[in-house]
Amino acid sequence: MVYCDYAATTPMSDIALEVYQDVAKNFFGNASSLHDTGGKAMDILDQARAILADIFHTQPRQIVFTSGGTESNLLAVDSLLRASPIKEKKHIITSEAEHSSLYYYFQELSKSEDIEVTFLPLGVDGQIDIEELLQTVQPHTSLVSIQHVSGETGVIQPIADIGKKLKEQDIYFHSDAIQSFGKIDLEPILPHVDCLTISSHKIFGPKGVGAIYFHPQVTLLPHPVITNHEHGLRPGTVDVPAIASFSASALQQKQQISHNKKHLTYIRELFCEKLKNLEVPLRPITSPAQCPSIVGCIADFVQGDYVMLEYNRNGIDISTGSACSIGYTNIPRSISPFISDREEGNRYIRFSFSHLTTEQDISQIVEISNRIFVRMKEERTNYEKKINW
Amino acid sequence: MVYCDYAATTPMSDIALEVYQDVAKNFFGNASSLHDTGGKAMDILDQARAILADIFHTQPRQIVFTSGGTESNLLAVDSLLRASPIKEKKHIITSEAEHSSLYYYFQELSKSEDIEVTFLPLGVDGQIDIEELLQTVQPHTSLVSIQHVSGETGVIQPIADIGKKLKEQDIYFHSDAIQSFGKIDLEPILPHVDCLTISSHKIFGPKGVGAIYFHPQVTLLPHPVITNHEHGLRPGTVDVPAIASFSASALQQKQQISHNKKHLTYIRELFCEKLKNLEVPLRPITSPAQCPSIVGCIADFVQGDYVMLEYNRNGIDISTGSACSIGYTNIPRSISPFISDREEGNRYIRFSFSHLTTEQDISQIVEISNRIFVRMKEERTNYEKKINW
Ligand SMILES: Cc1ncc(COP(=O)(O)O)c(C=O)c1O
Ligand SMILES: Cc1ncc(COP(=O)(O)O)c(C=O)c1O
Repeated sequence: MVYCDYAATTPMSDIALEVYQDVAKNFFGNASSLHDTGGKAMDILDQARAILADIFHTQPRQIVFTSGGTESNLLAVDSLLRASPIKEKKHIITSEAEHSSLYYYFQELSKSEDIEVTFLPLGVDGQIDIEELLQTVQPHTSLVSIQHVSGETGVIQPIADIGKKLKEQDIYFHSDAIQSFGKIDLEPILPHVDCLTISSHKIFGPKGVGAIYFHPQVTLLPHPVITNHEHGLRPGTVDVPAIASFSASALQQKQQISHNKKHLTYIRELFCEKLKNLEVPLRPITSPAQCPSIVGCIADFVQGDYVMLEYNRNGIDISTGSACSIGYTNIPRSISPFISDREEGNRYIRFSFSHLTTEQDISQIVEISNRIFVRMKEERTNYEKKINW
Repeated sequence: MVYCDYAATTPMSDIALEVYQDVAKNFFGNASSLHDTGGKAMDILDQARAILADIFHTQPRQIVFTSGGTESNLLAVDSLLRASPIKEKKHIITSEAEHSSLYYYFQELSKSEDIEVTFLPLGVDGQIDIEELLQTVQPHTSLVSIQHVSGETGVIQPIADIGKKLKEQDIYFHSDAIQSFGKIDLEPILPHVDCLTISSHKIFGPKGVGAIYFHPQVTLLPHPVITNHEHGLRPGTVDVPAIASFSASALQQKQQISHNKKHLTYIRELFCEKLKNLEVPLRPITSPAQCPSIVGCIADFVQGDYVMLEYNRNGIDISTGSACSIGYTNIPRSISPFISDREEGNRYIRFSFSHLTTEQDISQIVEISNRIFVRMKEERTNYEKKINW
């Protein structure tokens, strides 16, 4: 089996599994309990928070643990909206390409009388047009939320540049870094955002845990459900074993970030190069600002879902982008700049790689791709002959 | 170390640890992915859901997995409010003794113009007065939410009786069963509620996972963040390893429920009996409707926090009820019927037991209790002598 769906989820690393097991067994207390069993769990939680804080060059207070990427996104947005100055109406600027966990939330918020939301379209290369973004800024703009890397195309948004332009203004800036964390360096964007969100299961940690980084300048208000957990920002008993395991994974990914980036860049280039030699073309979506872990592709004439099932039959796990999306349509909003119509959009498939992906994997994928598409083309030709006969 | 804080959290059972590890390793896929790796994870998720459904004598569709007890409570309430008929104003009836995760949420909701909340006080034995509850019902009452068992006193609320009375009315009835599940039988209340919430880490499963049971007659509406996870009711990648582990734990607790109940009843009676022989009294809170896992106590003259630390120094983990509560006050709202004033409330401590608690544990606790309180009393007497000298 060749797993090429690391953007959907990753297996837990050995260290993540080991830490989970160790903490669950030996530090099982409720971190809020005041006795030693609780205190020991709290120590582990503090250590995990310190690891994340270190990665984000900040104080532990600025890290909030959540139940995953989706909750990180929702809680980040809610917290920033609560923290932003009270206005008659609050204006949010986001993009049409955000992950469904945010996109549909913003759609919902936009129905409220107190909130107005601008959904920016993507430009030619799949990037936000910064000038266009700045033109939509209004006196009551409270929040800008733009993802760092698209899970479907791997396009990197110009987060640092957007952040610099927003700096002088009284607007919070959040970026969903769930697909970028561990694959490309976050250092260049860190000074320019107020908030980043990440998810553990995308970086070889356990599922069911995520984190939010808030810039120290954000003065957060308590969660509506008064709580003493997570600095009063998130209610619910804290999942210390998963958090510890997540932090071990995050540290490992952070330590190997330049190796990861190099390896992924090599793998992506190798793959795209080999795609050129396919008898039936498979067109990779490529942007000048490209995260190398993701290769969105447009197949030549077959629907993505059908292609995906064919790969599956041949032991290769790929995605059509619908795992984290929803049933309405399988065409991810983020690929719109790269397709000319819906029909083409339906032919979208996604390969996503990790540091575990090997050259042999790539050779195997390409070989099988060739086989699949040549056969499909033959079938179609035969079919066309038949109906024209 | 004698752990007497099972109501705060429990260690994962061997089976829970084993299942977690196995699923995380061998079924790591995203359950929403359409390839085999995803499908295998979905199969595990289906199995886990079927186990829970079986426990609640219902269809898998009626079980929703969440990130824990707190989220179960909040999502249950939100889902029921969304499902209830649209009215100009919705009225909620709850009690003053609900867990903080709900109590403060209801406080927050009550600030909204569209929602009115009645907080019922507890009667003499710590139980809700059903007549009083029925008198507060209004034409726009949409939801009644009353916990099954208090985490601080172990008082069992008359859920079946309340449910029977509400049955003829168009009102949803939710009960927080987080402290009762696995300790007392839920069968008698099952036919009389629309919704129950449970939490894994209270029943020897992993932290960070919980579940909601909805009665089939509740027609649920989708979550505001459109999603294909959890029947559209909860967004976010599903934590299959934790859910599988939770379901294994739930099954085990369900299977040993009559043993658990018998053992806990024996342990509680033994403990309360032995408390009578203490030289300095420690008064257990007891109600005619008592869940045996919890023994809330009022110490004779020392503050609970101080007593808790003394026990801790002597290797016994107990609680003052504040682990799941908040910083404002350490006096749990649910003990109000059992104390005459705040000063007495400050002397509250809680022992909570499980099937792992042994007779030897009880002997040790009682012996140490004697030592602690006799010494404290001596100290006080000496101090009083000094200042009166
Ligand atoms: C860009 C992006 N944001 C948010 C999420 C949601 O994260 P999670 O699956 O941890 O809820 C995902 C993946 O599902 C994602 O790719
Ligand atoms: C009665 C009750 N409800 C809700 C909760 C919250 O559950 P969780 O800790 O899983 O968030 C708890 C325990 O903390 C509880 O005892």
